[in-house]
Amino acid sequence: MAEERYDVVIVGAGPVGLTLSTCLQRWGYRIKHIDNRPEPTLTGRADGIQPRSLDLLRNMGLKRKIMAFEPAKVYEVAFWDPNSKGIHRTGTWASCPKFIDARYPFTTLLHQGLIERVFIEDVEKHGGHIQRPWTITGFENDGKDPSYPVEVSLAHMDGTLSETVRARYLFSGEGARSFVRDRLGVKIHHKDPIAHVWGVMDGVVRTNFPDIKMKCTIHSDAGSIMVIPREDNMVRLYIQIASSTDSDWNPRKTATAEEVQQRAKNILKPYSISWDRVEWFSVYPIGQGIAERYTLDERVFMGGDVCHTHSPKAGQGMNTAFLDAVNLAWKIHHVESGFAPRSILSTYESERKLIAESLLDFDAKYAKLFSSRIPSAGEVAGAASNEPEENDFIKTFKASCEFTSGYGVAYNPNTINWGPEHPVQHRLFLQYPEGTNLRTGRILTPATVTRVVDANVVHLEQQIPMNGAYRMYVFGGEPAKTKTALQDLATHMSNRTSFYSIFSYLDKSLDRYHELNNPHTNFITICTIFNSPRSKIFIQEMLPEVFARYRDHVYADDVWDQRVPDAKAAAHAKMGLDEETGGVVIVRPDGYVGCVVKLEQGTGTCEALDKYFSVLTGKRLGEERATL
Amino acid sequence: MAEERYDVVIVGAGPVGLTLSTCLQRWGYRIKHIDNRPEPTLTGRADGIQPRSLDLLRNMGLKRKIMAFEPAKVYEVAFWDPNSKGIHRTGTWASCPKFIDARYPFTTLLHQGLIERVFIEDVEKHGGHIQRPWTITGFENDGKDPSYPVEVSLAHMDGTLSETVRARYLFSGEGARSFVRDRLGVKIHHKDPIAHVWGVMDGVVRTNFPDIKMKCTIHSDAGSIMVIPREDNMVRLYIQIASSTDSDWNPRKTATAEEVQQRAKNILKPYSISWDRVEWFSVYPIGQGIAERYTLDERVFMGGDVCHTHSPKAGQGMNTAFLDAVNLAWKIHHVESGFAPRSILSTYESERKLIAESLLDFDAKYAKLFSSRIPSAGEVAGAASNEPEENDFIKTFKASCEFTSGYGVAYNPNTINWGPEHPVQHRLFLQYPEGTNLRTGRILTPATVTRVVDANVVHLEQQIPMNGAYRMYVFGGEPAKTKTALQDLATHMSNRTSFYSIFSYLDKSLDRYHELNNPHTNFITICTIFNSPRSKIFIQEMLPEVFARYRDHVYADDVWDQRVPDAKAAAHAKMGLDEETGGVVIVRPDGYVGCVVKLEQGTGTCEALDKYFSVLTGKRLGEERATL
Repeated sequence: MAEERYDVVIVGAGPVGLTLSTCLQRWGYRIKHIDNRPEPTLTGRADGIQPRSLDLLRNMGLKRKIMAFEPAKVYEVAFWDPNSKGIHRTGTWASCPKFIDARYPFTTLLHQGLIERVFIEDVEKHGGHIQRPWTITGFENDGKDPSYPVEVSLAHMDGTLSETVRARYLFSGEGARSFVRDRLGVKIHHKDPIAHVWGVMDGVVRTNFPDIKMKCTIHSDAGSIMVIPREDNMVRLYIQIASSTDSDWNPRKTATAEEVQQRAKNILKPYSISWDRVEWFSVYPIGQGIAERYTLDERVFMGGDVCHTHSPKAGQGMNTAFLDAVNLAWKIHHVESGFAPRSILSTYESERKLIAESLLDFDAKYAKLFSSRIPSAGEVAGAASNEPEENDFIKTFKASCEFTSGYGVAYNPNTINWGPEHPVQHRLFLQYPEGTNLRTGRILTPATVTRVVDANVVHLEQQIPMNGAYRMYVFGGEPAKTKTALQDLATHMSNRTSFYSIFSYLDKSLDRYHELNNPHTNFITICTIFNSPRSKIFIQEMLPEVFARYRDHVYADDVWDQRVPDAKAAAHAKMGLDEETGGVVIVRPDGYVGCVVKLEQGTGTCEALDKYFSVLTGKRLGEERATL
Repeated sequence: MAEERYDVVIVGAGPVGLTLSTCLQRWGYRIKHIDNRPEPTLTGRADGIQPRSLDLLRNMGLKRKIMAFEPAKVYEVAFWDPNSKGIHRTGTWASCPKFIDARYPFTTLLHQGLIERVFIEDVEKHGGHIQRPWTITGFENDGKDPSYPVEVSLAHMDGTLSETVRARYLFSGEGARSFVRDRLGVKIHHKDPIAHVWGVMDGVVRTNFPDIKMKCTIHSDAGSIMVIPREDNMVRLYIQIASSTDSDWNPRKTATAEEVQQRAKNILKPYSISWDRVEWFSVYPIGQGIAERYTLDERVFMGGDVCHTHSPKAGQGMNTAFLDAVNLAWKIHHVESGFAPRSILSTYESERKLIAESLLDFDAKYAKLFSSRIPSAGEVAGAASNEPEENDFIKTFKASCEFTSGYGVAYNPNTINWGPEHPVQHRLFLQYPEGTNLRTGRILTPATVTRVVDANVVHLEQQIPMNGAYRMYVFGGEPAKTKTALQDLATHMSNRTSFYSIFSYLDKSLDRYHELNNPHTNFITICTIFNSPRSKIFIQEMLPEVFARYRDHVYADDVWDQRVPDAKAAAHAKMGLDEETGGVVIVRPDGYVGCVVKLEQGTGTCEALDKYFSVLTGKRLGEERATL
């Protein structure tokens, strides 16, 4: 009997596996997804969603379901230190200060099981399911079937059932202990050799400690503790139980719930604390580590905790996992759709491993920052007010906030993220800070605009759902001034060899009237934004058909923004584009800026875009091809 | 066998019945709720939730579920009029312009069945259910059981089953055709004798009409039409089929779906329109009417369409129904809890009938406004920018916007809404515009503040859920300046005969540690707001215990607001209270301002509050009683 064939076999249904599964299931791939636990996470584990991750979940249409659980929201972090009476608050700072332009300047806290549930429901809604409790017992990229080169052996956890399937890709999201990683022989590299044993407890408390609903770092003569507020009136406490720097270090050292509670009571003095209910308690050893490779053959991939582990204190694990998965998902999608050559898959490791390395560097700095000294109110205020003078402390503080918020994620220039070293160059590419505030490899700046068709005030950065397509934002400046430039761009884009036309649907007879995001191609979605009041924008009359066809994606840049109070067109201004002449911004399917191009009359703008996409697609595009 | 006893029998499970049921079920009442339809509304019917109603639904914790259906949102209305080529757009205006301080400046559109579903789920979550298809066959306030004076006879629609029950109250939310109203002999008064036959069609269309996703009023030589965008890519069209002013008036005149579509095609020329799907189509006659009484005996009440019918064009029916129900719900609750004498029930009719009368007056004016002339852009801009000079048109326009948004609801002074004619007077009562911008009988102005315990940025007006309690907002000004005044207020409130202490829980042994809204009494919930940055507010140290006990309801008035850009304490400023010395605002359980009192040292502030509540509760309170 022939082995069953899948596009992707995913092992592990934690955040990384579920995010990958959700994306690919929606985009129509055939997925085999297994997990070795008999049921999803019920309590505990990871719990913090960064501001940037909340953007991502919203872009995936999952935010509302997350928020329906009424998670706790952390806006500020409080620092408590010892004094003669026990402990006292020495300062607070915003967890996502104003200098970060975040749509949701807070961390969202709820237990991993609730988050997983939202993903699982979405997977099931799209016809997938998680097979439990099953595990992987073997795999080989044997290439026996060139389309499905990987053979994967799976077995029920009780050993009674097993099956062997073939797949285009295998993905391991197994967590820190990974069969796939071990079998591949991929080593874990330790940046910081110090390991810790942590105790973590979720529960409902009663206390007169005033900051119990804040995120707190508490140092006292009796030890240290971290407080994290949670959904359902709960509080999470993290207590370090042992460290490999201890003279009697034992990674199997443990503590009972009662011992941890007693320690918390001692640390919190003069305040009292008691527990009405403990929902979850765990003690686990953890070290910093990073996998040397994320893939060896670009067929078997790994992500999430398989590739990076670190202290839970900065709340980065799950958030990094989300972004690992999304980064890989669209690249697999582009390769399998024929949009991109297989070489794009190499950027998964190069992009995501760099982020994990920064995370580990940051993890060490963050710990040091907190332990070495307490920021003064002036320093924190200075950082928040974006004043020019910055000392080292403020620099580290800012970098920390950017990092913990998720907005610090910056991919280096490569084939996707244009830069001066990019294989193609054109005089119209704009590079920060000349002609644009946007930086390639960074998230698109949020901006509020008015949608023309229905006058709804909307968040531009969220208007295109995560549909696997590139996002083309045509900032049209003043319509009267850019009329010819837009017409020229449309004309050249209509050339059948342009980046836009090359992937147009083959079956043009299909009725796509109600298709608003992808009426022409799954490769790209277009938004047009004019510096004009909404009532003065007439889509059919003012836009070339190429752009007018995306009728629900035409916007008026007419909403005042506190960050650029003097701008007439705030979105243009925030992107650093000329308010009169605009510009074109290409954003990757995962929301990061790919390139920024000047909008001008003639062939130039389309030429630059053709060049940019020619590298991504491995095709000769546009004029270049037409003149061959 | 003894008849079953219920607190309230509710007939009809449309918006008014469901809102009443939801409130009372949550507050612990025993409800019998019947509806004569075999199942809830599946499609069509009412569809517009006003900005003010969305506030209310949020306050009831139901907004997120409504929004999960992804309703359409209307921010602007467009006007189209005939020209030589067919029709052209002559103007647009905001449906809830900036001069209205609305948290959600848009109308939310989805069909009534989805809205009902949210209420039904909530009723069921709290142990209730709707008995279908059952109808009312008789009732009598026979007083045979003084506690349950109303006998109600109910029967299954197929006549096979019947039962007779006793109730404290009977409520009819039966809709325009009401058995209860007929049986009581309550007449419908017609303000405007003109009746109309309307055709209404919900469906998915394809068209090149550019404003198909806007609310539009279209006049053409071929007739008039109203366009309402809807959830699921649908559009609702309203077409007037006949009017009692027609020479051949026939209230039973009808039209087929095809006829209505053809008329729409003619009206929309030169644009084209066709239907992919029709979800709902109905033709119904409707006249303006208002019931002369809402109750005869304050035991049998009526609300919603039973009491008022009018044209569907202004989208007021369901919204008025929500507020009818809420107005009655808390008054029944206060009488049955012993908080208020039965006389408070008389304010249901006096308050709600006035609103219905205004609605009918408005309905006529609104129609006239639209038909008589088109506003110029300057006039609309003038209205929006709140300029001093106002012509009659702008005045009517503003009043219309206030009315359609729901913020025009203003109850007259009476025992609940303090005013100069109120039975009690005290020098510390503040009356608009002297010392406060708040007007009694109007909704509390929205304000954004920071919650002290967790640094969350929150909407003050939403912080107390609709829990049936009065809401006491203590604007504490600058803590150093109001320290004594607050302490004095707390001291006098602690007097066992004060408005605050009189209804304190009898069973004080019950553990109410986790009760944040009603730790002391179900009669009132307290919020304290200081003009101070969050990090400088220490609840235990700075607040008297009375206020500190509401630890999750202490706020920092430290969030900048565009409407009062120069204010240090924006919430204080928006309420028109002194930013240094503050003031006390009492808000009714339904969100309307009851009275505003100056905060000052000594007995005065508590005295004024005792006086205000003495009328509401029918008890002698505070110093007045102590000195008897």
